[in-house]
Amino acid sequence: MSTLYEQLAESLEQRIRDGHLRPGERLPSVRQACAQAQVSAATVFQAYYLLESRGLIEARPRSGYYVCRPVQGQARPALPEQVRTESTPVAISELVFEVLNSTRDREVVPLGSAFPAPELFPLDRLARAGARAMRHLAPQALTAELTAGNARLRDALRARYIRQGIVVNPDDPIITNGAMEALNLCLQAVTQPGDVVAVESPTFYAALQALERLHLRAIEIPTDPTSGIDPDGLAEVLSQHRVAACWLMPSFQNPLGALMPTSRRQAIVQTLAQAGVPVVEDDVYGELYHGATRPLPLKAFDREGLVLHCSSFSKCLAPGYRVGWAAAGRFAPAVQRLKMMSSLATSVPSQMALAEYLEEGGFDRHLRRLRLSLANNLAKVRLMVLKYFPPGTRVSQPQGGYFLWIQLPEHVDTLKLHRAALSQGISIAPGLLFSADMRFRNSLRLNGGHPNEPNMVDAIRTLGVLASQGPGRTA
Amino acid sequence: MSTLYEQLAESLEQRIRDGHLRPGERLPSVRQACAQAQVSAATVFQAYYLLESRGLIEARPRSGYYVCRPVQGQARPALPEQVRTESTPVAISELVFEVLNSTRDREVVPLGSAFPAPELFPLDRLARAGARAMRHLAPQALTAELTAGNARLRDALRARYIRQGIVVNPDDPIITNGAMEALNLCLQAVTQPGDVVAVESPTFYAALQALERLHLRAIEIPTDPTSGIDPDGLAEVLSQHRVAACWLMPSFQNPLGALMPTSRRQAIVQTLAQAGVPVVEDDVYGELYHGATRPLPLKAFDREGLVLHCSSFSKCLAPGYRVGWAAAGRFAPAVQRLKMMSSLATSVPSQMALAEYLEEGGFDRHLRRLRLSLANNLAKVRLMVLKYFPPGTRVSQPQGGYFLWIQLPEHVDTLKLHRAALSQGISIAPGLLFSADMRFRNSLRLNGGHPNEPNMVDAIRTLGVLASQGPGRTA
Repeated sequence: MSTLYEQLAESLEQRIRDGHLRPGERLPSVRQACAQAQVSAATVFQAYYLLESRGLIEARPRSGYYVCRPVQGQARPALPEQVRTESTPVAISELVFEVLNSTRDREVVPLGSAFPAPELFPLDRLARAGARAMRHLAPQALTAELTAGNARLRDALRARYIRQGIVVNPDDPIITNGAMEALNLCLQAVTQPGDVVAVESPTFYAALQALERLHLRAIEIPTDPTSGIDPDGLAEVLSQHRVAACWLMPSFQNPLGALMPTSRRQAIVQTLAQAGVPVVEDDVYGELYHGATRPLPLKAFDREGLVLHCSSFSKCLAPGYRVGWAAAGRFAPAVQRLKMMSSLATSVPSQMALAEYLEEGGFDRHLRRLRLSLANNLAKVRLMVLKYFPPGTRVSQPQGGYFLWIQLPEHVDTLKLHRAALSQGISIAPGLLFSADMRFRNSLRLNGGHPNEPNMVDAIRTLGVLASQGPGRTA
Repeated sequence: MSTLYEQLAESLEQRIRDGHLRPGERLPSVRQACAQAQVSAATVFQAYYLLESRGLIEARPRSGYYVCRPVQGQARPALPEQVRTESTPVAISELVFEVLNSTRDREVVPLGSAFPAPELFPLDRLARAGARAMRHLAPQALTAELTAGNARLRDALRARYIRQGIVVNPDDPIITNGAMEALNLCLQAVTQPGDVVAVESPTFYAALQALERLHLRAIEIPTDPTSGIDPDGLAEVLSQHRVAACWLMPSFQNPLGALMPTSRRQAIVQTLAQAGVPVVEDDVYGELYHGATRPLPLKAFDREGLVLHCSSFSKCLAPGYRVGWAAAGRFAPAVQRLKMMSSLATSVPSQMALAEYLEEGGFDRHLRRLRLSLANNLAKVRLMVLKYFPPGTRVSQPQGGYFLWIQLPEHVDTLKLHRAALSQGISIAPGLLFSADMRFRNSLRLNGGHPNEPNMVDAIRTLGVLASQGPGRTA
């Protein structure tokens, strides 16, 4: 259920997108809007604040709210030129490790980090829930629920699937050591060394690392920064290659932030079902939608058990607890066996803390606050990037999550930018990390999930200066 | 430091093994022993109790303690006939899953289980330590210590290595999701699909599963139930096969309980160093010695960084917490990368609970109690097996851990015995689980780590009856 203010924001957003409210046009005053929508002033303020955070409207001092004009940079990053015709073996780990290690320092502004700020999570409540649950745990429970995981936690997850209209099979979900393990086990369950796996491009580096670790080859599918991969592009790849599996992130894709529309999701599930190709679905950002409703995962459209849906609590509730899961459909027994063979079981204290927390209630309330905070901050970071980065910069406009994908002018080398920025105490994630074959050299990913970072504005201004000066490819 | 009673037991054990105290000979009375050793009566009682638990002496009512005569069954199980000349691809998972799933039921007597009884562990203290640590955790710490693990816990582990005279390299240890993950990551770090790995025979089924999962081939080395693999046997295998790595469990090997003597350890490390072959050392039972001192791991003799030492808290302190580690020597960076690629990090609440517990002190006191309890119960189970199992049964006499390896008369099929026993509410681990090529059909592993199991005597008597009746291979 969306709240009143979300409903109001949704309806105004619809009117802006339809063109009923046009760029530069003034929105109704708060008083007028209260009367029109029969809601309180607070509700109107929250709705306007949400729209502002999404970059759709702007406040003008002593005047009111206006629909934003498209500004330089609102244009989406260009697509990669064409479908790749060769699959490539993967070896990007060295670079990933260099970059990730450089972001560990607490003094570094974490624009290159993969995690939102830890203070956004109800850590005290989780700690208390964990303490309570472990105090009352029967000793036998410590080893009784190997390998699939704690029954209470699995029941709570099943209930959340059912609320989305998804019925998972009785072996699902399997609790894992974070989504990372779920994704790796699922990928291994549907591939053999040497197989070709279709991935988005750019794609999350962990997908590339998983391919590398399992001796698989990547075929990259061009991915629109707004709407994800194109079903026709996928069909073309499937017709040209013997693809063993896909790895896709339809909701708030990392790094683009793309949100695949429902019609595309349906088409993709259907295309894959016809080809009999399983898809590993990475849905770790699914709960972080900024709009009114949670996007349905591919799993919701799956009739063949070919979607292996993976997610976790690491990005939405409990960082560091390392609790994720897979609803692996027809591959659930294989995934469970691989789990048993590779790590046996998932930490009981972490599972108990989450089971207890979920039963207490409050998760959805926390999620609403978290989404609003991420949406607001991402919008702020986006505006700062538009303000400080050099002309020709293009910035994604994600509808969820906390990442911005930024395409700098052609000549800027973001690996050099990363090194220059790091020397000034700022981390970024250079575009190279997100490709198996060293593309996206002039792109980068910025983390907009740290609303309380005091040096954020300065850091973005500094990045803008560095990007404007070069460091160019030929520098 | 061993306690007084352990020292006394050790010196008496030495005299028995040297032949100074001979089978059937009466030990000094408690009063005499007090006077001779200048210790209290309680100390003498504890020492005698320990020796009794090890099957070395026996109490005769109203008479005193006597050195045991070798009984039928004290003979060691025979060795496999010869060194295998072919490596084999591995596929035993189906059977392992069938058997392990059958032991989940709490109503089943857990003689087939892999775990000691959970009530042997300080679960309340761990829970309190975890609650305290999580209450005081800085939010940043939840993601700051990816991937190698919590600094306090790693320091505590390093200190324990140093107490054994082992200096691990600065990247070590890497905290993992139990020893199972450590072993799997280490094995992957030193192999490529298709490689040959030398393992003990019989060997822990998880080693065979890891080989299966990583598309490796096994070459089995005959393993003496008392002293483990023979360095000459290993050298022969190395000369005949291109072995990429070994996986060995020198201390209280699962399933045999074998304890490799120090001289063999040195010889094996040297042989492997000369061949440049890395060894994954599974040391999860190392702390569970029944004698006076902890056996030194292979790692202690490693000068080349070729030993990847893996262990965990799951069997000696914190079942279900899923905290293990690897000290991977020269392969530490590779193992850390594989960890990052496959599961990113280990559960922070579990790591914090263990770090806090270890800093508080009391681990060694707990270990002393645990060892005594396991030694006593294993000796009891062993005596019951000798009493109730059919003539011709041979039983291992482990110096640590909690497993007995039992060789039944040739015609008994322990897979059938497993099924017959399960129908009567008793689990066992049939010998087939411990071989890549379906050997050990007339052997089984029994878990002697459940001292408070009320139905243990009845269960062993029932197993004895079932084993005597058949179910034979031709039944």
